[in-house]
Amino acid sequence: MQRYFIDQAYQPAVTVTGEPHHHMSRVMRMTVDDQVFLVFNDQTAIKAKIIAMDSEKVMLEEVEKERLERELPIQITIASGFPKGEKLELIVQKGTELGAHAFIAFPGESSVAKWDTKKQQKKQQRLNKIAQEAAEQSHRQALPTVHFTSEKELTTRFSEYDAVLIAYEESAKQGEQAQVVQTFRSLSAGQKLLVVFGPEGGLTPKEIDAFQAAGAKLCGLGPRILRTETAPFYLLSAASFYYELQH
Amino acid sequence: MQRYFIDQAYQPAVTVTGEPHHHMSRVMRMTVDDQVFLVFNDQTAIKAKIIAMDSEKVMLEEVEKERLERELPIQITIASGFPKGEKLELIVQKGTELGAHAFIAFPGESSVAKWDTKKQQKKQQRLNKIAQEAAEQSHRQALPTVHFTSEKELTTRFSEYDAVLIAYEESAKQGEQAQVVQTFRSLSAGQKLLVVFGPEGGLTPKEIDAFQAAGAKLCGLGPRILRTETAPFYLLSAASFYYELQH
Repeated sequence: MQRYFIDQAYQPAVTVTGEPHHHMSRVMRMTVDDQVFLVFNDQTAIKAKIIAMDSEKVMLEEVEKERLERELPIQITIASGFPKGEKLELIVQKGTELGAHAFIAFPGESSVAKWDTKKQQKKQQRLNKIAQEAAEQSHRQALPTVHFTSEKELTTRFSEYDAVLIAYEESAKQGEQAQVVQTFRSLSAGQKLLVVFGPEGGLTPKEIDAFQAAGAKLCGLGPRILRTETAPFYLLSAASFYYELQH
Repeated sequence: MQRYFIDQAYQPAVTVTGEPHHHMSRVMRMTVDDQVFLVFNDQTAIKAKIIAMDSEKVMLEEVEKERLERELPIQITIASGFPKGEKLELIVQKGTELGAHAFIAFPGESSVAKWDTKKQQKKQQRLNKIAQEAAEQSHRQALPTVHFTSEKELTTRFSEYDAVLIAYEESAKQGEQAQVVQTFRSLSAGQKLLVVFGPEGGLTPKEIDAFQAAGAKLCGLGPRILRTETAPFYLLSAASFYYELQH
């Protein structure tokens, strides 16, 4: 069943206009009595029925609440050093399916991609659109956001999270395996985890030092060396397995 | 350090020709005393030093064995119903990084992609090349293989595995969460797991019946609906987390 994110708080009767109206009436050619999922910005999700529609709006009424909890119990934010080409698009699309709460992109010291403010704004728009489509497709109850920031700003914000991890290739090479498990064990429902991933060239010792000084811990993600866009998939899948399948 | 898969059993002194010779001498412009990793087809991996080279061959000698175990303790084979476009390439590349032992592609009933034998052979070659590059990059000690087969042939081969799972979207929708954990718990080092993933349209009830009749079990991969190419990443990451980080 089609799923729409509605940027307002939950109401049992809703009138939608704009993009969702266009999609329901023109793209899907829905009519009265057709059902859809609506997800409100307070994470309430309902199954709703179309009760009336015209050329400008669709009126819907709640049939029942969605029962299954779709969101990871902890909020995981993925921070990625600007990777090359379209990799950020892949990270956001797959990361949204895998349950990420938010994405932050920052220019790492070894980032090859240099995006000016205009390019960043355009990319951010595009990435938010990708996140929305992936959230609809994967039946999310919360819409992940994508932001661009400086590395300094990112570090300043570490204190907003309950734990900050740095996925560090050297940790993987040295066989560090305990930090992710320890961190998952230490976090309970509603808490916030930030995980920082370097660009293709990795994080520099200077970056690592600055992150550690601000309270982040290094972690390995198994004994194989993962590409910069693959490592977030590992972390999010492991979190889902730990919190949603094992517990 | 550069990594090469050598299609012969372990020897402490090796002469390489062909593609790895070309790569060492022409692409990397290596010289005597340069070091590389060599991975033999019995999964022995060594750090080796170039002791001599000419226009046709490179002679290398072992410096030391690679100590870190890079392979998942259980062998996981990913079977994918032909997905659209280049998704199989993404599954093989990322799946190799994430530790898959082998890949099987089969034409699912709802597969849109129809690849004839000639196209399959070409695609198989290309996919094996992608697997090799990803295995080198991710420091694997075993080279995953990619095969194309019919659905009937795939089902006949279920008996070669210690466990067979079917990633089934309906299981995820209904909140089935225990099967993956149970299966991981039941398998010990050296055992073989096959996991079957449908194409975009999913597996049909007829396919599910046939797979179950042959001994496969349905499993969900968390409460979010994953795309056909994302689900294998989840399964492999969860396996690594369970076997390599938690244990």
